[in-house]
Parts: sequence; structure tokens; C-alpha cells
Amino acid sequence: MNFIKELDGGFSVIENLKVSGAREGKYGVSIIFCPNSTASAIFTSNKVVAAPVDYTRNVLKKGIVSAVFVNSGNANCFTGKQGFKDCETLVELVAKDLKLPKDEIAISSTGVIGREMPIDIISKVAYESLSKLGSNPENSLAAAKAIMTTDTFPKECAVEVTLKTGEKVKIAGITKGSGMIAPNMGTMLSFIVTDGVIASEDIKKALKTSADISFNMIVVDGDESTNDTCLMMANGQSGVDIVRDGEIDSNFQEALNYLCIDLARKMARDGEGATKFIEANVVGARDDEDARLAAKSIISSNLFKSAVFGGDPNWGRIVSAIGYSGCDLNPDIVTIAIADGEDEVNLVKKGEILAFEDTPYLKRAEKIMQSKNIRVNIEMYLGNGEATAWGCDLTYDYVKINAEYTT
Amino acid sequence: MNFIKELDGGFSVIENLKVSGAREGKYGVSIIFCPNSTASAIFTSNKVVAAPVDYTRNVLKKGIVSAVFVNSGNANCFTGKQGFKDCETLVELVAKDLKLPKDEIAISSTGVIGREMPIDIISKVAYESLSKLGSNPENSLAAAKAIMTTDTFPKECAVEVTLKTGEKVKIAGITKGSGMIAPNMGTMLSFIVTDGVIASEDIKKALKTSADISFNMIVVDGDESTNDTCLMMANGQSGVDIVRDGEIDSNFQEALNYLCIDLARKMARDGEGATKFIEANVVGARDDEDARLAAKSIISSNLFKSAVFGGDPNWGRIVSAIGYSGCDLNPDIVTIAIADGEDEVNLVKKGEILAFEDTPYLKRAEKIMQSKNIRVNIEMYLGNGEATAWGCDLTYDYVKINAEYTT
Repeated sequence: MNFIKELDGGFSVIENLKVSGAREGKYGVSIIFCPNSTASAIFTSNKVVAAPVDYTRNVLKKGIVSAVFVNSGNANCFTGKQGFKDCETLVELVAKDLKLPKDEIAISSTGVIGREMPIDIISKVAYESLSKLGSNPENSLAAAKAIMTTDTFPKECAVEVTLKTGEKVKIAGITKGSGMIAPNMGTMLSFIVTDGVIASEDIKKALKTSADISFNMIVVDGDESTNDTCLMMANGQSGVDIVRDGEIDSNFQEALNYLCIDLARKMARDGEGATKFIEANVVGARDDEDARLAAKSIISSNLFKSAVFGGDPNWGRIVSAIGYSGCDLNPDIVTIAIADGEDEVNLVKKGEILAFEDTPYLKRAEKIMQSKNIRVNIEMYLGNGEATAWGCDLTYDYVKINAEYTT
Repeated sequence: MNFIKELDGGFSVIENLKVSGAREGKYGVSIIFCPNSTASAIFTSNKVVAAPVDYTRNVLKKGIVSAVFVNSGNANCFTGKQGFKDCETLVELVAKDLKLPKDEIAISSTGVIGREMPIDIISKVAYESLSKLGSNPENSLAAAKAIMTTDTFPKECAVEVTLKTGEKVKIAGITKGSGMIAPNMGTMLSFIVTDGVIASEDIKKALKTSADISFNMIVVDGDESTNDTCLMMANGQSGVDIVRDGEIDSNFQEALNYLCIDLARKMARDGEGATKFIEANVVGARDDEDARLAAKSIISSNLFKSAVFGGDPNWGRIVSAIGYSGCDLNPDIVTIAIADGEDEVNLVKKGEILAFEDTPYLKRAEKIMQSKNIRVNIEMYLGNGEATAWGCDLTYDYVKINAEYTT
């Protein structure tokens, strides 16, 4: 896709956008200052929802966001009326400092559930973050770092896309999360800004399309957080319209897909305790929905994830996970292959098992399973449905991180 | 329920029933010799189904089972036409030895997927098992042991039930499995025999009712096997009718529930690598189906299971798991308590958090979390739905067992 060019520098590629990050111990605050941007978001479908999710949902009714406040260390979830008051306090702090209308400030939180926000320390870190607002790559990196919790590395992506009209716009984003992994700490938060001109309803559409094939296709442990948020703003600085005659430019959509998939893959790669990255590609499913079920089921199987950790090319667990996913499957014609950067080997070809003991197939498979990046390729021969999902292995460290977290 | 009396001795409590078990290394064979019994079964809903499941489904069309052959060590799954031939070979072996019609012999397997049955060794163990058929408690225990794979202890249960009519019948069963945990090795197999008189269609009904609140409510890792089988026979030796005027005796149903729940709990307790047993009770849900969703979601959450392993009373993970389960939930009125044999403490009461840091509630909760048996009690205040699910903690050993299994 030569109309998409990956850029360095995260948010710094977008004009008239200032961001910052500051941290004190486990509490971090990132600010995204994007005056008068159209905006839309996708939130967790968990019925238990953190105060900032409800708060920001309300802000977005107007469809304009001028700044985003994000804190890590406390999820402000299950915190009752005080939780909403704390949202207001923090939004007022930002509104006053940046001289913005209160109703254009979104707020987002990640961290422990069920503890009141330590408002003093978070306010202090917020002021520090606000004092550091800037438009350099370092500012973007600081913002990506301040929202981290159990993440082991900051996650940014920026692209320039040449639209069908030949005009260029940019999209940049940061994310945190180790998959939808830890309601207490591992919430997925993503913030994306484009300099294109696009109404909030169209952002919603484009973002949903991208999220369905990116953020919604990563699984670390299947737990869905109370705070998951993906918020996208368009500050229009390029002056370039993304929607013509009611249609979202398809190159823009591809670029947004690219960016979201890149951020999603980084989250899967950073799954708690992960030592290996797994990609599951399913083609030939009855339809895309079936393909998604199958791909996600493979990535979600604790048994297969444990086998990957142990380097065991256990295709029985793959086929079983597809079998209970709910998708259509004819085991007599399915092909199952695994691959890394160097080799791809069929374990089962059109229903016939190749990877028996003492076969060269199994030997090659065992070598592939030693790689850090493992692809599972499934061909179902039932239709044109396809999907890709990303995940990681299940390790001792996953258990350790989550057994010891709040104690 | 004083109409149910638990008995010792497993299958030995049933008249005219002979069972046996033999083992050589990882291969075991159990035989249940129950001439001319009515029978029905529940099988895995996985779309990848082992040969013996298809084979036995066919046998059950007639509704009469006179013997059951069960082997451990090889699942005979994904083994193509050879798999069916192997079923026939083993059934013929049993038919000849016991002088039974071939079409009254059910077969069931558990073990590795995708490897042909080592028919020589399994035949050898089968002959050994057949030579040991008997009706003593030791025979029942041997049968329960021979079907074990990663199980750490054999699982039997037997009850006597006084029906509404005052007549008495007995039910006995064995099971293996560490939850629906390991398609390669941890299949759930259950075999139940009653001496009551009951048609195969009614067995089906009664068994479904019991399975829905027992075997279907245990989760170790959420993986569903290709071989899961629960097969029930009635040899009618008591001469007592269980169905009158088209109704299954409600005391019999209660007793079958009791037996299935006992066997299911034993499986959950023996979850691979488990150090702690978890029971989740949900009451006040909108309906039973909602309660089941909530209870199973708690038991299935890797995050909560890891927290239990770590002894962390992390109720945020409980409420989050309920939140994404799909059930109706009002977090503002929910009550969440944990309990062991000695104490029960509310963590959240009608939406109000009690277990803050440095409270006596949290201290008591931390003590409870050290127990080997932990109950989570949820009251939703939305309706009359209730359900109980059983599971275990997620431990280093779970990962170890499943990372190292076939290699």
C-alpha cells in the first residue's frame, strides 16, 4: 500500500497539536491539547463502566474535543458520586489552565478499580504535565509513557496517507494496554489524532471499521476492562476533506486500519508476561464473522497459548479451538500451517495429518515454535471469509503479574 | 435432602453390574458391563468430534447399551477412516469376549489428538481389563483410575434415593477430567449407571437437566474437548419405575443432580495445576440464564483465577467479569461477598465498597483468600435467577502442565 507512509515522531507529525506526559510513581498524566477538534470514541461494552467513560460519553454528544486528560494508576471505577466529582475537578483544572470550555474536555483513566482517585497527587502530576505541553517527538513519547501501567514499552504510530484525490493527511496515535487484559490495571486506551477534516459521525464510522479488525482482534486473556476507550480527534489543520459525497476516502480508511492494527499488534506483543507473539490468519471461512470467531478462538485458547510458551506444535489444540468457536468447520478438508519469518509448514493439509512424530514436518514445526513470532495459517475451503487475530503465549509470568498485582 | 443418602463403593452399589480397569503406562482401559441397559448420552458440542463420539452416537440410536469400552492415552480424534476402524476393532474385541451384540457396545476415548490408536497395546490392556471384571468397590476404583489422564485422583460417587413413592433406587458414577480443560488430554468423561427402570428418552431428559447445573457449570480453562462424553445407563435391576404418568420422579432428578454436581466439583477441584477450589454462587439475577452467565464468567476469568492463586481479594476483577458476561447488572446495588468454611465477608454491599485498605473487611477477606476452598457470593437484586459454578485458580503449574505436555 504505497499510499501509506509510516512516519516517526508520533503526535509530533500533526500541526497545531500539543501533548505531554508526566509521572510520579505509579500515577501518570498525559494531556492532548487539540483545540476545537471533531471527535468520536469507542468504549468498553462491559456493563460496569468507570466514571470517566460515562463522563466522556457525555462530552462527546457535542462532538467537539479540545483537550484530553488521561491518568494512569487509578481507574476511577466503582467510585460512585465521588468518581464523577473527581472527573469534574480534573476537567476544571485543565479547562482553567488551557483556557478552554469545560464541555470540550474528555477524560480517561486506567489503574486500580474501586479506590477513590488520589486527587491531590493526580492534580499535582496534571499541573506538571500541563507545564510540559509541546509538539516535539519527545512530547509524544512522554504522553505514550505516562499512560502506561503494566506495559513494558510505550506504543506510538504515525502515518501519512495520500488520499484518492492526491491530497495528503496525517494520522497519529498512542495506545497503552497489554491486550484487554487487566481490569485492574491493563485497560486498553488509545488516542488518535488526524489533521484531516472529518465530522464526528464519520470519525465514528471510520473508527468502528478499523477497531473491528484491530483492537477487537487482540486477546491476551479475554478479560474486558471497565475503562477501555479508543478516542479519535480530527483537528482539520491540513484543510483536506476526508469525506466526499458522503463517502470516507478509502485510502484514509486503509491508513487508519494500518495505524490501528500497528497499535493493536504492539499491545498483543506486550501482553502481560508474554515471551512470544502469535498471529492467527484464517481464510476460506464461510464468512468474515466465522473467520473472526475462529481466529480469536485460537488466540484465546489457554491450552494453545501454553503450548506456544512451551514450543510445542500442538495443532490438536488449534483445531479443537476452532471446533468450539462456533464457526462452520469441516475438519476433513481444513489446512493448518504454522510459520515464522523463515519457514512455513503444513501440519494438516486438507484434513490429512502431516506432522506425525519423526516426520520432517514435525521437526520443522518444532523449529518454528522456537521463534518469537509465530503465525498460524488456517485455510477452511468453505467460503471467502477471512480474519486475522493477534495474541501472545500464556506464561508463568502472566500468572505471577496477576497473582501479585494489588497485594 | 434426607431422601438422598451417599454411599461408598462407587459402581459396586448397583446389582448385576461388573466393571474393571487396567493400565499400562499412559494407556488405560475401563470396561462397564451392564447387560441390556437403556442408555442416553450428552456429547461435546465441539465441531471437531472424535471417532468414538460419532460411533457411540450411532450405537445410542437403538437406546440399548450392554457394555462400555473406555480408553485413556489416545483420543482417537482427527484419525480419519482408521479411527472408525479402530473403534470397530475394539468393540468387536469386547463383543466377542463378553458375548454381546456389537451394536450394544459404546466406546469412549481420551488422550492425545491426531495420533492413530496404538491398537496393539490398547487391545492388550483391554483383555487385561476384561479379565478383571467384578462388582467389588475395588473394581469400581480400578475403573475410575484407568480413565484418568492428568487427573490427580480418581472420581466416584454413589447415592441411594428414596423416590416419592417410597421405593428406593441407586445411582453410581465415575468421571475423569480436570474440567473441560485439555482437548489433548483433559477431556471430561462421565459414566453413570442406575438400577432404576427408565427409558432412554427419559434418561436423556434427566441427564440434560443435571448436566446443565453440574458438568456445564465447571470451568478450568474454557477449552472444550473433542471427546467430552457423559453416558448414562439404567439396568433396571431394582425393578422400580422412575417415571410415572410421564413425569420423572423429582427425588430421582434431585439425586442425579446431587451425583453430577459431586462429580463435577471433584473435576473442578482437580483442575490442572490447581491449588484452590472456587465456587461462585449468584442469586437475585434477572433469570437463571443470567445467573449462569455471571457465575461462569467469574470462574472463567484468568485475572480473578490468578488473584485467587495469589490470595488477593480482588473484587474489582469479580465485578468486571460479571460486567462483561452479558448478564444484566446494576453495579450500584450489587453485593459481593467471599467466604470459606469459617467466615463470610461483604466486600461490596448494595453497591457500597466496604473492603477498602486498612479496613477489618479487607483483613478478613485476605484471611479467607488463604483458604483452599473459596466461595464467591453475589446478590444482584434484579430477580429470582440463581446459579452456581465451580472452578479453580490459575497457577504456574497449569502453564507448566500444558506447556510441556506433548513434548
